Parts: sequence; C-alpha cells; structure tokens
Amino acid sequence: MYAVIMAGGSGTRFWPLSRETMPKQLLKIGSEQTMLQQTAQRIMPLVPHERILIVTHGGLLRDISAQLESSFGGSWSNSIIVEPEAKNTAPALGLAALHISRIDPNAIMVVLAADHFIRKSDLFLDAIKLAASAAKKDYLVTLGIKPGRPETGYGYIRSGAPIDLAGTKGVFKVSAFVEKPDIATATKYIAGGDYFWNSGMFVWKVGTFLREIERLQPELHSGLQKIRNSIGSGNEADVAQTVFSTLKPVSIDYAVMEKTDRAAVIPVDIGWSDVGSWTALDEVTDKDAAGNIIAGNVIDLGSRDSVIYADQRLVATIGLHDAIVVDTPDATLVCSKDRAQDVKKVVDELKKRKSEEHLTHRTVYRPWGNYTVLEEGERYKIKRIVVNPGAKLSHQLHHHRSEHWVVVTGTARVSNGDKEYDVHSNESTYIPISTKHRLENRGRIPLQIIEVQNGEYLGEDDIVRFDDDYKRHDTVKRSPLPEIPK
Amino acid sequence: MYAVIMAGGSGTRFWPLSRETMPKQLLKIGSEQTMLQQTAQRIMPLVPHERILIVTHGGLLRDISAQLESSFGGSWSNSIIVEPEAKNTAPALGLAALHISRIDPNAIMVVLAADHFIRKSDLFLDAIKLAASAAKKDYLVTLGIKPGRPETGYGYIRSGAPIDLAGTKGVFKVSAFVEKPDIATATKYIAGGDYFWNSGMFVWKVGTFLREIERLQPELHSGLQKIRNSIGSGNEADVAQTVFSTLKPVSIDYAVMEKTDRAAVIPVDIGWSDVGSWTALDEVTDKDAAGNIIAGNVIDLGSRDSVIYADQRLVATIGLHDAIVVDTPDATLVCSKDRAQDVKKVVDELKKRKSEEHLTHRTVYRPWGNYTVLEEGERYKIKRIVVNPGAKLSHQLHHHRSEHWVVVTGTARVSNGDKEYDVHSNESTYIPISTKHRLENRGRIPLQIIEVQNGEYLGEDDIVRFDDDYKRHDTVKRSPLPEIPK
Repeated sequence: MYAVIMAGGSGTRFWPLSRETMPKQLLKIGSEQTMLQQTAQRIMPLVPHERILIVTHGGLLRDISAQLESSFGGSWSNSIIVEPEAKNTAPALGLAALHISRIDPNAIMVVLAADHFIRKSDLFLDAIKLAASAAKKDYLVTLGIKPGRPETGYGYIRSGAPIDLAGTKGVFKVSAFVEKPDIATATKYIAGGDYFWNSGMFVWKVGTFLREIERLQPELHSGLQKIRNSIGSGNEADVAQTVFSTLKPVSIDYAVMEKTDRAAVIPVDIGWSDVGSWTALDEVTDKDAAGNIIAGNVIDLGSRDSVIYADQRLVATIGLHDAIVVDTPDATLVCSKDRAQDVKKVVDELKKRKSEEHLTHRTVYRPWGNYTVLEEGERYKIKRIVVNPGAKLSHQLHHHRSEHWVVVTGTARVSNGDKEYDVHSNESTYIPISTKHRLENRGRIPLQIIEVQNGEYLGEDDIVRFDDDYKRHDTVKRSPLPEIPK
Repeated sequence: MYAVIMAGGSGTRFWPLSRETMPKQLLKIGSEQTMLQQTAQRIMPLVPHERILIVTHGGLLRDISAQLESSFGGSWSNSIIVEPEAKNTAPALGLAALHISRIDPNAIMVVLAADHFIRKSDLFLDAIKLAASAAKKDYLVTLGIKPGRPETGYGYIRSGAPIDLAGTKGVFKVSAFVEKPDIATATKYIAGGDYFWNSGMFVWKVGTFLREIERLQPELHSGLQKIRNSIGSGNEADVAQTVFSTLKPVSIDYAVMEKTDRAAVIPVDIGWSDVGSWTALDEVTDKDAAGNIIAGNVIDLGSRDSVIYADQRLVATIGLHDAIVVDTPDATLVCSKDRAQDVKKVVDELKKRKSEEHLTHRTVYRPWGNYTVLEEGERYKIKRIVVNPGAKLSHQLHHHRSEHWVVVTGTARVSNGDKEYDVHSNESTYIPISTKHRLENRGRIPLQIIEVQNGEYLGEDDIVRFDDDYKRHDTVKRSPLPEIPK
C-alpha cells in the first residue's frame, strides 16, 4: 500500500497566517505538528516512510522535505513528486500513479490531503483498510464524511446499493456525485441519511486507476505515457513540462470519479475537518467558556465566540462577537466570522497590488536557520539572521549590495574574499559588494547576527551561489518523479 | 486677557495611538495640527503668544514646547507652568492664577482644555468675548454646551435667571451643577432646554478667582501663598513640591464653581467635542458613504460604521459593523464601538503588567530627531536613529552597553573617546562600553543610522550626559512658574 499526500494547496483562506510560501499544510493548526506532519503520522501505522509520496509544486519542495525530515528523520527528498505546473488534481494523481505503477502495478494507492484534520485516527485507519479490500476488487473508493450540519460549501456523494465483499459491510456503490447544494437542499440531504461530504480521500489499485484514466481521459493518459517513455532519457523534466503545459486543468472528481462505474463510497464518522477557513478552527481546537479561541499576547475584555490569534505583538480586544482577529508581524486581519470565506479576496487584492504580504512572512525559514526582515527603507534593509549550530549558508556573492554584520550571540566563522576569520559576539564585520563570502556557525549555540544591507537593489534574488550544503546552486532541472528505489 | 491651556491629560482613551508620553493633546485628531496646536491657534485672535500659558506635568514639558515652537515659532518654554504633582484641576488653576496675578491682578483668565475640538471658532471667540464682559463684573463664567444628544458621560449645568450686562444677552446665573445623569434623566434635561454640558472652559478675573479660592478653599489658598512667598528664594521648586504633596486632589468644579454664588453660564453651540473616546472621532472627522473612518494601509471589504486606523503595516478588515480597529507598530486594538470607554481598562491592565505599550511608542521624538526601536532581545537592542541636519545628540556615556553604528544615509560626525571622525553612508563604527561619545549631523540631509546595542542592561536611563544642546544634563530643579516678563 502506498500513500500519496496532496500538498500543493495555496491555503489563501488562512491568510495572514498562511502565505503563498507557507500554506496551511505547513502550519501547526490544532496540533504541535504541522498539518502535513500530522497527515504523514496518521497513515504511518499502515504505510511506512518508504511508501509515502508527497505531490506538491517546486516552491514548497524544500520546506516539505525539511518538515518531514525534522519529524520523522531520514531523507524525504526522494519521496516528493513535483507537479511541473498546477493543473488541478487529475494530472497530479496521474503522475503519482505512473510513478507507483513502475514499482508495483498492483499496489493499492491511498490519496490523502495534506491539510485536513482528522480527530479519530483509529476509525480513519479502519476505513482505509476496508477501502483497500474494496480496491482489491477494482473499485475506486472514496471516503464519504457523515455530515454534521447542512454545509453548503462541500460537494456531496449519494450512496447506492451495498457492495458485497465476502460478508464485510460498509461499502456502497456511488449513486451520484452532487455539486455544492443550497441550504434547503443540504438540509434535505442530511435528513435523507444517504448523502455524505466528498472528502477528497481515495483508495484504489494503481492499475485500475490508470485503466480508468485511459478509458475516460485519453489525452491525460497519452501525456502520462509520454512522460513514462522519457524516463531515463535525461530529458524527463522538459518532457513533463511540455506535457503538463498542454493538459487541461481538471479535478479527479470530474475526470474519473463522476464518470466511472467502479466508484464506491465508505461512509465514515472520523472527526474530519478540511479546516477550510478561520471559522473551522472551532472544529479542531478547544474553546474557552465564552466560546473564544485565544492565543498569543492578547488582552481580551469580554469577547465572545471569537478567534483571536496574536504572536509577540500586543493585541487588545474588547467586546467582540463572532469575530476573527489574526495578527502577524507584517499584516493584521479583522473579519466578521460570517465573512471568513472572503479572506481569499483580500489575498487576490494583495496579488493585484503586487504586495509582499500574501507571499512570504517576515520570518523566512531556511535549511540553515532563519532570517527576519526587521525593516526595509530606501537603499537599506535590516535582517536578523539565526544560523543553527553546525550549519552554514552558501558560499555566495551579491552584485548590488554590501553587508554589515554585527554578531549578537554566538561566534561567526566568516569567509570574506580571501580571508577567513571568527567574529565574536559584540564584534562586527563588513562584506563589500561583489565579494565572495560565507557565514558559518561552528559553535554549540545559535549564532544571531544583525545584518544591515546597503545598495541600490536589495531583492533576495541578487545572489550567486558557488557552493551550498543544500545543493541550491544546482541548476539541473529536477525530474518530477523521484528515482525508483532499487 | 490671558489664556491658560490645561495640557496635563493622560489621554488613555485613545490608546494605542495615545500613550502616557504622547497623550491625546499631542496627537493630530481631526486636523493636520495637533489638538494642542489647534487650541492655541483658536484663541490667538484674542490672546497673543505672550499671554498664552500652558499647564502640564514635567514629562510633557519638552514635547509641548517643541510642538508650539514648530507651529508658532519663538520660544515657548517660558510659557509653561509645571504642576509639581497631579492634584486635579483646582491646584493647577490656582498656580496659573497666582502666576498671572503677579503680572496683572485685574487680568481676565480664560481656561481651555488642550484636547477639545471646536468646529465653529468664530462662535467660540464671540462666546469668550461675552464671557470676558461678564468676568469683568466679577462673575466666574463657564461655557455650557447646548446638548445634541442625551449624553450620560458628562455633567450638566442648569441655567437660571439671565444676568443683565447693560443690555447684552446670553449670560445666565448657574442654578445648579449636576452629576452625570442616567439616560432617562439626560433625556428629560434635553427636553427641558435649560441644561447644558459642562465643558470645562472658564473665564474669570484672576483676582475674583483667587478671592473665591481664599474664601472657599483656604488650605489651597494658603499653599499658593507659600509658593508665592518663595519666589526669588531660589527654593521655589522645593516649596511648590512640598505644598503640592500635601494638597487634596480636587476639581475646579467641586472646589469653586459648585460653591460660589458668582457662577454664570453662557450656552453655546460651537461644534464642541471633548473627543473622549474613539467613537467621538465621528464628531470631528468626515465619514465615507458606509459610515467608516478609514486611514492608513487598509484593505476593507464591506465594513460599516467603523473606525479603521492603520499606519504602515497592512490591516485587512472584512464585514465589520460598529467596530474600532487601531493598529500601531507595537500594539493593536480591536474594540466594539459600544465598549470604547473600556479602552482605559486595557491601559490599566498594561500598567499593572508593567508593559511598555501604555507608556511610549516604538518611535520616540527628541529635539534632535527621533529613534525607533526595531527589535529588543536578550542582551541586544536595535534602533534606527534619525538626526536632523545641524543637530547633535548629547555628549554621553553608557555604563552597561556598547554600540555599533552603521550609517545608512547622510554622514555622521562621531566623537568617540579622544577621537573625532566622519562616518559615511555604508560605513560603520563602534562605541565601546563606558566611552564618552557624541553623534552629530553636520550635513544637509537627515542622518540615518542603525544602532545595535550590546550589553547586560539596555534601559534608556543608562546614560550620563556631559554636554547637551537641549540642557538635558542640567539637573537644577525647574520652578513650576516661569519668570515674569520684564
């Protein structure tokens, strides 16, 4: 059994906590682990590390491996399938299936979302096992969530006749997939008892799935074949890019599930939430007596049924009802709960304005540590840089800026042009423009430096890398598919 | 005619925009000028600079002179009366009256609040002139605001019989001062037509006022006499301090106005607001079509009847109704409008926690320019310092910290121990611990430097001043009363 975790989501609905480079699946929501880490952990009793695959886009590759490696150890970079271009779920899952089928065409493939919350892991695993037994009989199985409320934001699955699996109960033919209903229809669905939320979790045999793609989506199938044939040619990345650029974006529901006659549903009650907006925090986090979820440096006087999320900065709230307040170092959201779905409109507006606040946080995590932009002004930028013990940044050079470094804690090993020397706390050094340099922490405690950049262009992309522990200077295009393990 | 502007208020109700060191009267509310500047400007057609006095406490002395000097030129430090200790309005006004009576015992004294808004300046000046004519007949005159709504947050004045001033109409005996009413009583007051809001603006002859203090508040009077007798002894500051420490805090209403039989009221309709809370912004600022007052870097989707105040940082608001959102670099307030009076409870809580967020802003203005704390951490603090062209900081020394300076724009003249040298943009220098140093901008453009402090104690009070253009090293106690002009 293989698990494929879909982790390409952009998570705009959790802005400003989520950003394009830090979407919901990489955040700690409802747990000390990130949603991605929770998702991997949850399936591990059935699927070992080596058979868990992550599908994502190139921008998240590094952070996803880092999160998985920090939680579970080992290397995860070979477990990641990179979509050459975002084309919705069908092409992405086709690519994953192609990869698995090269290893084992009879493997069971479990499809999970990286950003869903599931309270009852045991029941979830039971359902996956049941689904696997149906998948062995060539069914394409989806988990249908027993609806707790007449939700109008989800599609529904109507169950049909039970499927006889040698006495095992709980699997049904799918009678229909239906679009997001209005509230009256949703209420009727709930009363009926045979409608379930479409969770986007699937279980199928990889061979069955690819045959259904061949039958129902011949263009996608032939694209996948081209990619398959290119493997070993050294040209995989280009071929995959070309194929994906011509594919129509299409969801797996529309492409396969709604059309196949092999669709089955297993109704489950596993404490599921897609945590689709700030209001959904209610489903994954405990509330206080007044119905509030409050975190961080908050002084609240008499608010009710509100989400108040602060970080270090002080947030004072007085007498709010059904409000969402999210404060981050560079942006604050204040939103009425009934408008939580409109957070993505703010993100759209920020994109239109080319603002940075939808893209990155003030603090950016890197394999060697992190940096925080403290201030940007005309011709200068100030960062606090933290280098983990034993880590070093790439050997690099900037064409448009010089840098002053003041060491605040720890000891910096600095290579600066031809020289190499240590800079201790309360000492400083200067890196002239166009000079090769490197920063390293050979000590036992985190190295913190304050960097003052001067120059006429201060973008992060003014960097030439010569050597990098994290291979970021490697410009060879990465194949979307990892190597097949021997 | 003299004007006495009461400018000692702490303005906690406009937190987080107002702070203990930056109260409401020093803020720009409803105008491009600060409320203090507006107040001085408003009375200037009747009272020239030389006869305007400001009563405040020592902590605001410097900022008040700076604001008045920047708006009106000349020196204002000799126009400021410093309360030795906050004892409510009666002792403060007694001190001001004492000062004026030494110059001219028959002068008319106009008492104004530094933090009130008045839309109709002409009507205001007319009322002051009318009040002065009644004051000449030894009345203690107060302006009564014609109430626009049944406000429960103000005391009311009931007018009695008209006073005959040789045919001039509009002045009435006060029949009663009444406490803040409940809503039913306030509604009755409005219907009656003879109740007016107690605005805290007064006009009287200084001699009449001091005689009433002598008659009604003999302890206060004898204290003022002690201060008067000490003038010229070189001991004024100590005597005033001792006298004030024994005085009971008491308002001018309670001490004099409610007890005297010489109280008169002039009902006025001058577009007055005491701007007593964030909701009162409605009275001084235009609203957009949806009833919002929005300023700064805000993206709003569909809010109504709300105040949304941002600065540089992004604030996104969605679907708020009757809300107040105020974002500052170190603190954010989100408040239901009907709870605006409770903002001061947040300030009380911050005082209790000994937090800095009630005390100062991240950016602090100084006579030489300003500084902004960008970040504070264990053993380090980072500031951006801006020195105005031609200005210099004091010659100083710190016992507990060293400082790294990186010049970002302009040229710094640095004196560092025995050496004196220039540091240009994109250069840095280091000030060791316990070393006398000075920073000066001899150039034509603002000097900006990034300062990284290192040390075990980084409080602003670790400073020994040797020489200072702004006399801040002068430890001689200041007399509460300025010198009498020759």
